[in-house]
Amino acid sequence: MKTIIGIDPGLKNTGFGIIRISNNSAEHIDHGVISTPTEAAKGSRLECIHKTITGLVEKYKPEEAGIEEIFFAKNLKSAIPVAQAIGVILCALSLMNVTTFSYTPLEVKRGVVGRGRAEKEQVQELVRIILGLREVPQPDHAADALAVALCHAHSLTLRNFMKTGEGRGV
Amino acid sequence: MKTIIGIDPGLKNTGFGIIRISNNSAEHIDHGVISTPTEAAKGSRLECIHKTITGLVEKYKPEEAGIEEIFFAKNLKSAIPVAQAIGVILCALSLMNVTTFSYTPLEVKRGVVGRGRAEKEQVQELVRIILGLREVPQPDHAADALAVALCHAHSLTLRNFMKTGEGRGV
Repeated sequence: MKTIIGIDPGLKNTGFGIIRISNNSAEHIDHGVISTPTEAAKGSRLECIHKTITGLVEKYKPEEAGIEEIFFAKNLKSAIPVAQAIGVILCALSLMNVTTFSYTPLEVKRGVVGRGRAEKEQVQELVRIILGLREVPQPDHAADALAVALCHAHSLTLRNFMKTGEGRGV
Repeated sequence: MKTIIGIDPGLKNTGFGIIRISNNSAEHIDHGVISTPTEAAKGSRLECIHKTITGLVEKYKPEEAGIEEIFFAKNLKSAIPVAQAIGVILCALSLMNVTTFSYTPLEVKRGVVGRGRAEKEQVQELVRIILGLREVPQPDHAADALAVALCHAHSLTLRNFMKTGEGRGV
């Protein structure tokens, strides 16, 4: 049995999803979004993300984390705050000794749906089905974070078979 | 009297410079570079930056910080790790209740030399003269961080006169 936290990072909204995997089943534990007020100082917004991630790790004690990282971005202006949030999250997880793996959006889709070109709605619907939920988790950022957690679980299973992983240790 | 920490952020090398200002004089307190090993996991490198900044704040108790931020960057691939380091530094300073102001490289040059188009060597030489040092502080990242601290000191002085500041609160 292993607890995994999946994270869809952002300065304004960071989605998180916690699942527990055992054998070949995945159980939904929690999900939500850390929202920070745009009018607050950037440092205090990042502090809020840091503290909430730390609190979630204290509460659920995940052994591993999956995080959706930026590998390419068209718009630098929008990529910078996301990268700042990612930095804070990677640091908070490292401080709590949670081993973290990063995945591209393409890898997350492939890890959940089996192919990289899936629509967002398809990914979310599969997240719902795999975790046996009645409805698609809301909001989007939380559903995306659960998808990252499932992608990491999938990657773990593959690794058990192949002794190689998709995710990059970060 | 006020203690200021200036920071030139980067994942590989984060320069820091501590100065103390009173009336119109600036005193050099410390400078150095936080270097993280490229072969280490990114989370642990960011954790190292977080812990060192926290340690510096505990040691010198700066009231305010100046940080050189990315506002434009040509190369996204190189901007992302810098942004991640900035995120961690802003978070660490916020956790320690240090008010932080960000400056562009242009503003740092203007704040130290009086114009934005100065050469790096001119800025470093002026840092040396203003702080009454025998030699230009080494390495470059530490000298740059002292320049950011002096830029913030200059901005504070201006603000005292004009009740307006150059730096953006972050």
